[in-house]
Amino acid sequence: MLAEFDLIRRYLMPSQTPLPADGVALGGGDDAALLVPKAGHQLAVSVDTSVVDVHFPHDAPAFAVGHRSLAVALSDLAAMGADPRWCFMALTLDQRTFANDHAIHAWLEAFAKGFHTLCQRQATTLAGGDVTSGALTIGVTVMGEAPTGHALTRAGATPGDMIAVTGALGGGAGGLALWQRGERDLQHPLLRRYLLPEPRLAAGVALRGLASAAIDISDGLLADLGHLRKASGVGATLDMTSLPLAEALESSLGRDAACNAALSGGDDYELLVTLPAENVASAQRALGKLGLPLTVIGQCSDTLGVKGIAPNLGTGWQHFNEGAP
Amino acid sequence: MLAEFDLIRRYLMPSQTPLPADGVALGGGDDAALLVPKAGHQLAVSVDTSVVDVHFPHDAPAFAVGHRSLAVALSDLAAMGADPRWCFMALTLDQRTFANDHAIHAWLEAFAKGFHTLCQRQATTLAGGDVTSGALTIGVTVMGEAPTGHALTRAGATPGDMIAVTGALGGGAGGLALWQRGERDLQHPLLRRYLLPEPRLAAGVALRGLASAAIDISDGLLADLGHLRKASGVGATLDMTSLPLAEALESSLGRDAACNAALSGGDDYELLVTLPAENVASAQRALGKLGLPLTVIGQCSDTLGVKGIAPNLGTGWQHFNEGAP
Repeated sequence: MLAEFDLIRRYLMPSQTPLPADGVALGGGDDAALLVPKAGHQLAVSVDTSVVDVHFPHDAPAFAVGHRSLAVALSDLAAMGADPRWCFMALTLDQRTFANDHAIHAWLEAFAKGFHTLCQRQATTLAGGDVTSGALTIGVTVMGEAPTGHALTRAGATPGDMIAVTGALGGGAGGLALWQRGERDLQHPLLRRYLLPEPRLAAGVALRGLASAAIDISDGLLADLGHLRKASGVGATLDMTSLPLAEALESSLGRDAACNAALSGGDDYELLVTLPAENVASAQRALGKLGLPLTVIGQCSDTLGVKGIAPNLGTGWQHFNEGAP
Repeated sequence: MLAEFDLIRRYLMPSQTPLPADGVALGGGDDAALLVPKAGHQLAVSVDTSVVDVHFPHDAPAFAVGHRSLAVALSDLAAMGADPRWCFMALTLDQRTFANDHAIHAWLEAFAKGFHTLCQRQATTLAGGDVTSGALTIGVTVMGEAPTGHALTRAGATPGDMIAVTGALGGGAGGLALWQRGERDLQHPLLRRYLLPEPRLAAGVALRGLASAAIDISDGLLADLGHLRKASGVGATLDMTSLPLAEALESSLGRDAACNAALSGGDDYELLVTLPAENVASAQRALGKLGLPLTVIGQCSDTLGVKGIAPNLGTGWQHFNEGAP
């Protein structure tokens, strides 16, 4: 059995030479981290827990588990249009599920690499952590900043605003379906979408001042559109023919299952935004510079519920055409 | 089975009418909370995970589980001398371990009451949360503030500084021992110390400017003194006869077990501080106003290790008299 302190020092805090710019006055190793927030900014904070066999398969590659547990948390900052700054990791790990100490080290090394690689790419400093014993669970707290009053929320959509999504949809659910059928090639585009989602942080920041509301797609397009509609008090009409489907989704699952994955599958971690029609072109240009498409899929209305979904796409129509917007 | 959103709304966010002063621009229900840090302050942030049957017994009262999971996290802010501001809760709960929905509701209501009561008493706003399915685990992120440059750390002790502790020691380990023997009277002072510890937040703030270093006693006096000594690069001499023992500890466990509990037991969540001799009286006066004793138990030295511990108190002497300070 490895001691908690060793695990933290060795795997979770390997790059604790704080950069002058990273806003960490005191990093891991004291009772708390000391951070230096930027003046004129609000802090965006979110916590996300990833549990083995609930949020990821127990046999998922450790690198992907590390990447994914941070990615899903950062995705919430992307939806706020916040610049990521710091994160904290609470790792719960059952050492008895490993064959030996070597297996623990190998798993932790790959896990930490997945986590740290994404930290580095998204300019997020791991500023503290905690290791406990129990079923594999990764709790991640992410902290970002947005200039005061400029964060995106779910509540700003008004009737007439266009509804758009970044990237492509259905890849999360499609990748899970393939994984469950035994596909293990991590180069498969759908498996990558499921196991190694990319939080749309740069897109969220680029959409500040252009989008009227935003949410990330974790529960599925219709469910998350429901959250946004409820917070904003609007209805929506969707154009089913315009949904951008993930690469290889239709050929892997067939047309109906592909549409269902895009509508209700979840785990896509794309951004769903609303924006005035006159901002669409600017937003598409801004995201184009990031190599990311922004596709208009519908429009906000003052009529209750969601319209435009074919009745044979059952789950969407049944569950989300509720009485109140 | 209850839906995640219902659980969060009903039990974890009951008091989401942010006070004007609480620094919450946007509370739970969006992708992230938006917080407003105070100018001229640094943020102290810590995460703590409490796992069933690791950090608390599975049959501990739900109120105590709620209180305790927050208390142990806030204790880290106390050790930094930070004013608590916000917290976030990641609750993992296995609904299948309850007999029925009524039992889940009853447990959650008491759990939330324990958590919220301490939030209120310590002026800490629960600003967001996450509920997932799995073995009972409570991850708490706490955020506090201290004027820039005035937070207490583990690293400021110098040879000659006095070593002191708040309150009394050994109650955490003593309470656990009684619980394991079947004691269930929550009015028993030792059980209260174990299940309902009080984070010393006001004491931490009062010690800013007086203490040279601080840590909270979670792993045990000797272990935590070891962390402080290592961070500060000092040795220590302890006066065993001066250790303030928790009420009813010696009568419940006997003298030797009581001393061992105070030295190595952990879970006391008192503050261990160092301070120049000339500050001791001021610090005792400041803590006296809070109804809390501050007891000098030793002095920092430039000699390696810890001296003054009787050899028959084995764990302390054996484990912590290491070669380097």
